[in-house]
Amino acid sequence: MNNVKGFDNIAVLGVGLIGGSIGLAAKKRGLTKHVTGIGRNEEKLAHAEKLGAIDDYTTDVAEGVREANVIFVCTPVQLIPKFVGEVAENAKPGAIITDVGSTKSYVVIESTRNVPDGVHFVGGHPMAGSEQAGVDSAQPDLYEGATWVITPTPHTDESAVKRLADFTTALGAITEIMDPSKHDMSAATMSHLPHVLAAALMINASDQEKDLGTVYKLGAGSFRDATRVSESMPEIWRDICITNSTALQEILEHYIADLNDFSKLLSSRNQQAIFDFFSQAREARIGYQEVKNEKTDNCD
Amino acid sequence: MNNVKGFDNIAVLGVGLIGGSIGLAAKKRGLTKHVTGIGRNEEKLAHAEKLGAIDDYTTDVAEGVREANVIFVCTPVQLIPKFVGEVAENAKPGAIITDVGSTKSYVVIESTRNVPDGVHFVGGHPMAGSEQAGVDSAQPDLYEGATWVITPTPHTDESAVKRLADFTTALGAITEIMDPSKHDMSAATMSHLPHVLAAALMINASDQEKDLGTVYKLGAGSFRDATRVSESMPEIWRDICITNSTALQEILEHYIADLNDFSKLLSSRNQQAIFDFFSQAREARIGYQEVKNEKTDNCD
Repeated sequence: MNNVKGFDNIAVLGVGLIGGSIGLAAKKRGLTKHVTGIGRNEEKLAHAEKLGAIDDYTTDVAEGVREANVIFVCTPVQLIPKFVGEVAENAKPGAIITDVGSTKSYVVIESTRNVPDGVHFVGGHPMAGSEQAGVDSAQPDLYEGATWVITPTPHTDESAVKRLADFTTALGAITEIMDPSKHDMSAATMSHLPHVLAAALMINASDQEKDLGTVYKLGAGSFRDATRVSESMPEIWRDICITNSTALQEILEHYIADLNDFSKLLSSRNQQAIFDFFSQAREARIGYQEVKNEKTDNCD
Repeated sequence: MNNVKGFDNIAVLGVGLIGGSIGLAAKKRGLTKHVTGIGRNEEKLAHAEKLGAIDDYTTDVAEGVREANVIFVCTPVQLIPKFVGEVAENAKPGAIITDVGSTKSYVVIESTRNVPDGVHFVGGHPMAGSEQAGVDSAQPDLYEGATWVITPTPHTDESAVKRLADFTTALGAITEIMDPSKHDMSAATMSHLPHVLAAALMINASDQEKDLGTVYKLGAGSFRDATRVSESMPEIWRDICITNSTALQEILEHYIADLNDFSKLLSSRNQQAIFDFFSQAREARIGYQEVKNEKTDNCD
């Protein structure tokens, strides 16, 4: 056993890519003695057991969480508060409940309401994989080097935060403790806005193609990269937009204002200002890559 | 010799990645007897000759184009009309002058003014590489499978268009004949707008990072792909924006209107309409990939 204490019994509610990889990673690294899978579909749970992601399973939430020291709620984001409540009612005193949702203020505020004293809820967001991919894609090294954001509030039990952070770090993740609202504004900037832009760009191009018939012929690498994530599952992105609408709208309005400014530069054919715009972007991108230690030709 | 007639003598003005690859490709495929390089820097021209991209070179435009059947003007886009004029003054009767600029209406209108009767200007845009990369990156197969758009006007000599198209096809390119304004609207949609969006997104994120300090921590694959091209050279994108400002502004305004609509969906938390937005984008993206015969994990 590793030096992470008190995680002998783990329960995972929703055993897909994210939950399944938590089970595989915890077991591979000797961080736990037992992983219980909880879900609605027995066939899928039996398959997850066969893959070694869980040790046993149940479709009964109360039964599944009874012995657990920590419970990972890995459901679509809009369902998290409801399931956290159901888990909390049946968890043993001192148990830690966490989630893996892509937005955090909504999840933390709504979930905390459903958690009685004596049980701890700590929000979390492992930045790897997708909520809708199946357990067949689960990997024991999914979190190796990935960022795992933990989002306590001033009222969250500090020892629960520390124990969860030790665990996610032991899974191989880079653990970041962050205020839920800072997480949401950061995620809106770096992930939610880019997804909206990609989808809008794809729709825009498809409209133009219908009008002109020559548009797609001009598509190359820049368009492909710019629209790659527009293929993501609509359910996930509806949920993310709805549960992070305030931060996303704020950053979107900021972005629209920047585009309006650029449009004015085009009207006035302001060569120097247009050069400066692209030059500032290039410098920022080079700075970002240095921070992330990324290569330009990085591909995944 | 291949079955492309009348290209025994080729001149390339500006021997970088694009021009150098034309020389290498034409020679490798036996499409020409002689390639003359024209430029300002003798050292660079000598280097291009050593690489086999050209057979000889001169810094004198008049001398370089005198014997040429076809002249490729491979300069930054804002300089093309001026150089086309200089080439046209000295080219022999019947010679074809073409260019490789990323925008076409400006180039075609301005260049045609500078071309006397008896010499043919035909606009072109090979969609591969970048105007600023050097001859060291030139490859004989750069145009293999790449789209090469040729943009005649109703006044362009048809036989010159056909001869140029036969040549670009013989270089391995997929040749597309397209009206300059259709080219420019299509390129604005598929390439120029995505470059503006990427640059604005990178600047936006960098501003937020300065404010919050947590933003870059949330950056993953979607942000990396969305901003990759923001590292492009500002000179090139200034020139493209300036010479295609009308089409680019039209498509940008259309896109901004779409973002404003989406922002309203966020305000009203319209779950169904947000789902439909992402669903429409996903379908369009899948349709696009089928047209382009691309794989999601395509990487270059």
